[in-house]
Amino acid sequence: MALIVQKFGGTSVGSVERIQAVAEKVKAFCNKGNQVVVVVSAMSGETNRLVSLATEIDDQASAREMDVLLTTGEQVTIALLSMALEKTGIPARSYTGGQVRVLTDDVHGKARIREIDHEKIKADLDSGRVVVVAGFQGVNEKGDITTLGRGGSDTSAVALAAVLKADECQIFTDVDGVYTTDPRVEEKARRMSRITFEEMLEMASLGSKVLQIRSVEFAGKYNVPLRVLSSFKDGPGTLISVEEGDEMERPVISGVAFTRDEAKVIVRGVPDIPGAAYKILGPIGEANIEVDMIVQNIGEDKTTDFTFTVHRNEFSKAQNILRDIAKELGAKEVIGDTDIAKVSLVGVGMRSHAGIASQMFGALAADGINIQMIGTSEIKISVVIDEKYLELAVRSLHAAFELDKPPTK
Amino acid sequence: MALIVQKFGGTSVGSVERIQAVAEKVKAFCNKGNQVVVVVSAMSGETNRLVSLATEIDDQASAREMDVLLTTGEQVTIALLSMALEKTGIPARSYTGGQVRVLTDDVHGKARIREIDHEKIKADLDSGRVVVVAGFQGVNEKGDITTLGRGGSDTSAVALAAVLKADECQIFTDVDGVYTTDPRVEEKARRMSRITFEEMLEMASLGSKVLQIRSVEFAGKYNVPLRVLSSFKDGPGTLISVEEGDEMERPVISGVAFTRDEAKVIVRGVPDIPGAAYKILGPIGEANIEVDMIVQNIGEDKTTDFTFTVHRNEFSKAQNILRDIAKELGAKEVIGDTDIAKVSLVGVGMRSHAGIASQMFGALAADGINIQMIGTSEIKISVVIDEKYLELAVRSLHAAFELDKPPTK
Repeated sequence: MALIVQKFGGTSVGSVERIQAVAEKVKAFCNKGNQVVVVVSAMSGETNRLVSLATEIDDQASAREMDVLLTTGEQVTIALLSMALEKTGIPARSYTGGQVRVLTDDVHGKARIREIDHEKIKADLDSGRVVVVAGFQGVNEKGDITTLGRGGSDTSAVALAAVLKADECQIFTDVDGVYTTDPRVEEKARRMSRITFEEMLEMASLGSKVLQIRSVEFAGKYNVPLRVLSSFKDGPGTLISVEEGDEMERPVISGVAFTRDEAKVIVRGVPDIPGAAYKILGPIGEANIEVDMIVQNIGEDKTTDFTFTVHRNEFSKAQNILRDIAKELGAKEVIGDTDIAKVSLVGVGMRSHAGIASQMFGALAADGINIQMIGTSEIKISVVIDEKYLELAVRSLHAAFELDKPPTK
Repeated sequence: MALIVQKFGGTSVGSVERIQAVAEKVKAFCNKGNQVVVVVSAMSGETNRLVSLATEIDDQASAREMDVLLTTGEQVTIALLSMALEKTGIPARSYTGGQVRVLTDDVHGKARIREIDHEKIKADLDSGRVVVVAGFQGVNEKGDITTLGRGGSDTSAVALAAVLKADECQIFTDVDGVYTTDPRVEEKARRMSRITFEEMLEMASLGSKVLQIRSVEFAGKYNVPLRVLSSFKDGPGTLISVEEGDEMERPVISGVAFTRDEAKVIVRGVPDIPGAAYKILGPIGEANIEVDMIVQNIGEDKTTDFTFTVHRNEFSKAQNILRDIAKELGAKEVIGDTDIAKVSLVGVGMRSHAGIASQMFGALAADGINIQMIGTSEIKISVVIDEKYLELAVRSLHAAFELDKPPTK
């Protein structure tokens, strides 16, 4: 008998019919002898409906009251799903975040979970019930209702799985797993049966929006095996877990991730003096602008071009901040480019295989794609290229590393 | 400085605009230096929407889960009203029933309040906030969400007023007070400025559906002055409080109440033996059928006609139960009539004035209205008549007791 936490998002519970379908899915799982805790989001559309009611009243409404308002969304779903389960003959009981005391900090709208009281849940499971918990929500020490922010239901599910020492946390979504790259760009993209937490983090943060990053971090930290599955069709999905070296020959490269969300800022002709990088990035950080890739190259004239990428939404803000800084530094100019894309190869196998980078650059060169920036981590190599080559680059790399073929045993 | 509990029902908070209007009303009250606790219902239509979602899944859904579902309705309203108050510059804070620990018994859907923890509310009031509390809801000892049943928000408001020792509990509704009779039947009906708890109970239970009976009982028990006011127009409304003999000459009769909801059951020719009444009414009570008026008269042949009234919805059920009983008893037959109406004169002044009954019967006789049954209590005289005479009877009594004229000092 396994203990499984299953999470169903807004689309999966978007109507009475879908809630009934979820109940059938959970029932099938129970009938195999599993204990099941279900975490649900608000029915799709409901959160937006509530937000727009609030906005009509005050577009700067207090975060505390927004949380009181929005948490009704999941509360409706837990009640309806429990009813649907009981209707199919499965005893069920619903709990709000506050009722199982998902204790969070005080940050309304973006709270972080501190602890969960799992006694009630354990007791219900032991007496043969399915427990249905409202995702996304908790309470602070004072008993005020808090929310974990958008996508927080994934985090709720992982936190519950960690506290309950569940065998697996299953995230049901509208895709049937994690792919080697976006199938809309490369139709040969292949669903991976396994991926490590680290790889998933790199894939997710690079634009494969299957899971909330925080929930993957959380799952990795507490070593909760995470499985991404489709709500709408059966299949094994993708298991995200720690690397298990003995199990199979790991593929060198797992996938190709990409994003169009970044923009490039270049401070040209920065005098090569100590502290120049700090003077440039300090004010950017103070303005809460997140910086992704950073490249610096010393030129021949003892000046340097300092280049970094930020989210496109913050491109103008970053440029404005830097204009004065550049003058102070005696730099030549601040320029930038929003028509860029970042493409990344991700794979834990990379650690032990030399030559991946050169193979990557070779493949891109063969297709005539110029590389503007390069960044590397332990399990990732990213390049910034002209946005118009994005699809070509993704397909080129997908083919070069034979990602359409399942990894060989 | 007074402490006032104000309750706004579903129609009063039925849209964003109306919630904003309520916020303005509350603000005006605060600006006069009052401390205000606001109790709200779900936005009109919301409870029905939630019920129909549940019914789609299971028309026998568990009462526990129904309560989880329905309580989201008021939770939305408290958040929106708090936002609207803050937008107008009035600091406000919302609480669900669970958060201020409206502790109830275990009866989901019809719970009774046991106690309320008013510490948080007091602290907020003392720091200058308006406190907005979700009506209709509470929690039981286990922390499960409960509801007080339809109209329970009135009870929540009165209970809060009692616990907080509020100076007044104001129930805002779609009528501007309690009238001497239904203005749709008698256009000369007059809004009463005061009425006693006892009179209000008789008026309410007899069909003037302004307030929930339970809340009036509750207010009387804890001596909470209750005021019925219109949400939509200004005015003093009707104050419901204990009788204060020194204040004014009480009118003998306060109002004329009536109902079309009853039906008459007659067991004819019951042998006049001890225990006959018990044998008839015992099974009726066991079937949870509520009996209102009961009349028994011994005839000349040592048999009696036993007549009582029940709610029309339970008329067939009552008749079916009695058919067998009548045989056992050796009674002649069971007959009945649904085309009846009950008209009642209500007034605490009745206690000290003889002759009210004869004046009443005289007025009805003068208009040719035959009386089928008569029942009396300390402050009420009720008659059952043919339904077709209902309006005539109401107008006849309203005129006979000069209810269109304000009571003289």
